[in-house]
Amino acid sequence: MTNKEATPRQLRREIRENILSQPTAGMAPGYLQCNLLILPSAFADEFLDYCEINPSVCPLIAKTKPGVHYFDDLGVDIDIRTDLAGYNVFIDGEKSVEVSSIADYWQTDFVSFAYGCSFSFEALLLDKGINLGYLDRGQREALYLTNIDTNRTDRFGGKLLASMRPLHPKDAIKAISITDKYPQVHGAPVHIGLPELIGVDLGRPYETLGPISIEKEEIPLFWACGVTPQLALINAKLPICITHKSAHMLITDKLVSEFSQ
Amino acid sequence: MTNKEATPRQLRREIRENILSQPTAGMAPGYLQCNLLILPSAFADEFLDYCEINPSVCPLIAKTKPGVHYFDDLGVDIDIRTDLAGYNVFIDGEKSVEVSSIADYWQTDFVSFAYGCSFSFEALLLDKGINLGYLDRGQREALYLTNIDTNRTDRFGGKLLASMRPLHPKDAIKAISITDKYPQVHGAPVHIGLPELIGVDLGRPYETLGPISIEKEEIPLFWACGVTPQLALINAKLPICITHKSAHMLITDKLVSEFSQ
Repeated sequence: MTNKEATPRQLRREIRENILSQPTAGMAPGYLQCNLLILPSAFADEFLDYCEINPSVCPLIAKTKPGVHYFDDLGVDIDIRTDLAGYNVFIDGEKSVEVSSIADYWQTDFVSFAYGCSFSFEALLLDKGINLGYLDRGQREALYLTNIDTNRTDRFGGKLLASMRPLHPKDAIKAISITDKYPQVHGAPVHIGLPELIGVDLGRPYETLGPISIEKEEIPLFWACGVTPQLALINAKLPICITHKSAHMLITDKLVSEFSQ
Repeated sequence: MTNKEATPRQLRREIRENILSQPTAGMAPGYLQCNLLILPSAFADEFLDYCEINPSVCPLIAKTKPGVHYFDDLGVDIDIRTDLAGYNVFIDGEKSVEVSSIADYWQTDFVSFAYGCSFSFEALLLDKGINLGYLDRGQREALYLTNIDTNRTDRFGGKLLASMRPLHPKDAIKAISITDKYPQVHGAPVHIGLPELIGVDLGRPYETLGPISIEKEEIPLFWACGVTPQLALINAKLPICITHKSAHMLITDKLVSEFSQ
């Protein structure tokens, strides 16, 4: 278990030194966690377009210049190559390896994109008195592939992945109003209540962080998930690209509360 | 049918002259409609307390001094005694008569309360591109008695009445975020999705404005309803009190958009 009191900087150091390797959900409550996506500069402008036309899917927080391996605005000592506990390297649209450092894969034309993750808003919801019963049951959100098409550019497109959290209806209403004020961590949900409408069978998650259950007094809420662009990248078959490993995010020094709109 | 272009003032005049007598839902889109409640001044302070501890049920817009039969702030020519198409007069907690003017019942110690009505926010939702399918089907919201207790004062208390509107989940999410910004017309819903949790059987409405159906792609949303205090008044068995007849509201000159928070 991680120390709940650890600062984002401490956590990044432990991740860099391979002391920490688990999913970052619940770590550094109140601080922004980011999805990471790295690709050769030749594709960066088009990927930026994809982010801009899919703001709830990839709400852009920061973007580097080619070859730069830090995000100065997100934390002074961040090293993009080592500060995530897991990376996926894709070659020609196929997942090639899963690694805990990408130093060996680094290219001088790499452009990195950081965009908000819904891990960031759970602390906000708890602060507002919302009961996240799944956390009390030792569970985490689950990912589902929906039948919703993201808006596409020439090269990038694909279906929306959504993270599902079950909530009591009263808490669901509050969670919608609160997350709507935070578009940079995916904003309001994309769906509530009738999973079959978005092509989801609750019994068949795309990915989970352990068991997941929905109690009789809960309804499922679905938020756009930052793993979605990984599907778009796979579809685009880029010669190389790198992403965070699902649920292993970049922990930043920024407070989520700064992003309220 | 009423003229959609009629101003609030024109509508009030037609109501006063008994030319108009139907429910005011859908009239004067964009303008605030109010619930009305009139009681002897001896009970006014306690009823004000009840409003203040139940802000989503009776979001207070205006209150008169004893004996005053107008709301200057809501429309310059409003006559509280004649400008609603229907009033319920209650004697000792029993409904005595339903009338279209209360001039004959007026007392010099009467205090009038106007509080927001959810009729007011439908125009807002339509403006924001939300599909209110029940309107297209020629239907209206339905009222249900819930098992939710309102906060009580010594004399005033009772269960919450809720107005139900069925929406597509995508529209439901937007409707929650939008109405949350308008606490003075009941704000965000009190419930979504699992009516049995609040003691509601959808087949047994408390009151409807005609047939109501929920399509397969819709989920029910419940907003606190301004008829709720009528139940509190009945329970309190006041010697006399007067309310608007359900769905026959005071149409004001105020734009709902002014009440955004």
